[in-house]
Amino acid sequence: MSNHLPAIVVVFTVLLLVFVTWQVGRARGRYGIKAPATTGNETFERVFRMQMNTVESTVLFLPALWLGSTYGSPLLAGIAGLVWVAARFWYALAYAQAANKRGMAFILSAAAAGVAFAVGCWGLLRALIG
Amino acid sequence: MSNHLPAIVVVFTVLLLVFVTWQVGRARGRYGIKAPATTGNETFERVFRMQMNTVESTVLFLPALWLGSTYGSPLLAGIAGLVWVAARFWYALAYAQAANKRGMAFILSAAAAGVAFAVGCWGLLRALIG
Amino acid sequence: MSNHLPAIVVVFTVLLLVFVTWQVGRARGRYGIKAPATTGNETFERVFRMQMNTVESTVLFLPALWLGSTYGSPLLAGIAGLVWVAARFWYALAYAQAANKRGMAFILSAAAAGVAFAVGCWGLLRALIG
Repeated sequence: MSNHLPAIVVVFTVLLLVFVTWQVGRARGRYGIKAPATTGNETFERVFRMQMNTVESTVLFLPALWLGSTYGSPLLAGIAGLVWVAARFWYALAYAQAANKRGMAFILSAAAAGVAFAVGCWGLLRALIG
Repeated sequence: MSNHLPAIVVVFTVLLLVFVTWQVGRARGRYGIKAPATTGNETFERVFRMQMNTVESTVLFLPALWLGSTYGSPLLAGIAGLVWVAARFWYALAYAQAANKRGMAFILSAAAAGVAFAVGCWGLLRALIG
Repeated sequence: MSNHLPAIVVVFTVLLLVFVTWQVGRARGRYGIKAPATTGNETFERVFRMQMNTVESTVLFLPALWLGSTYGSPLLAGIAGLVWVAARFWYALAYAQAANKRGMAFILSAAAAGVAFAVGCWGLLRALIG
């Protein structure tokens, strides 16, 4: 079971990306921002920035999850991954409401990614020395 | 052979990313938009948005391909992946022409990514239960 | 040791992404650009574009690294990866100074990613034929 935890995290990460993409599409409709424009309404701009930040963050998180699962512990990296995904859903919902509500969610997601990364670095170090 | 299909999809995905990056570079030259600017000409903005959307979509697709190949079937996930890449080249060319031409290509690519993802979720579910 | 080289590259890639994200955060503070805005100061815009370009480039590089490591040679792909990461740190620092200083670093990083990709394509071709 714990060996499959990282894959479960990947499932929720894909759902997170679907969610934020859908949020931007909905905001385009609601505020009348036609592609390729990305500006023109403050709420739309916030939702759009939220999506970009989620994508950037995923590009950092997935390699950290891989490292933590492969070299460290699938269980520890998987739990950190679940926290990361939950924090990122929270971030998406908070940022859509107001820019200054995203702080705690960002910090939690960064900490969770940091744990997965640290677990992986530690395991890699042992593999290199041992 | 079918075990290598996901790797073939990765090869074409890398080529897709090279293609869209090169498109943006060419559009910068053609319409005189010097980096770091990303606005100032409508066609450039469309090409730029096309690239961003391709990158965002790749960040969602590759984990889905991994899931589908690892837990489901490399053959099914690989075929879905080939459809995704083809739809994404179509999307790139259509969006560069006009924003309203990108609809069908987007839907096809989303459906293909959805198939790879569904195949993976199904396989993961069996692995968790069985 | 050489089998772990790609993982070492992943460690530095994650650190690169942390570095460029932190650069954008710092530039937000220094030039007073409050999220979700991404324009309003030329230096901020350059740092922001640098981050986006780093993320886009990472989305292309990591699949190429995987391909090169899995199908080609972990040693060759790993060395190309170390060059890529170094060139990308150089790119980040050069672009933050002036847009026209980023050329050489970009070319070097593209060449390194190209080597990892070529090594992988070659290995995949042998796997398909052999």
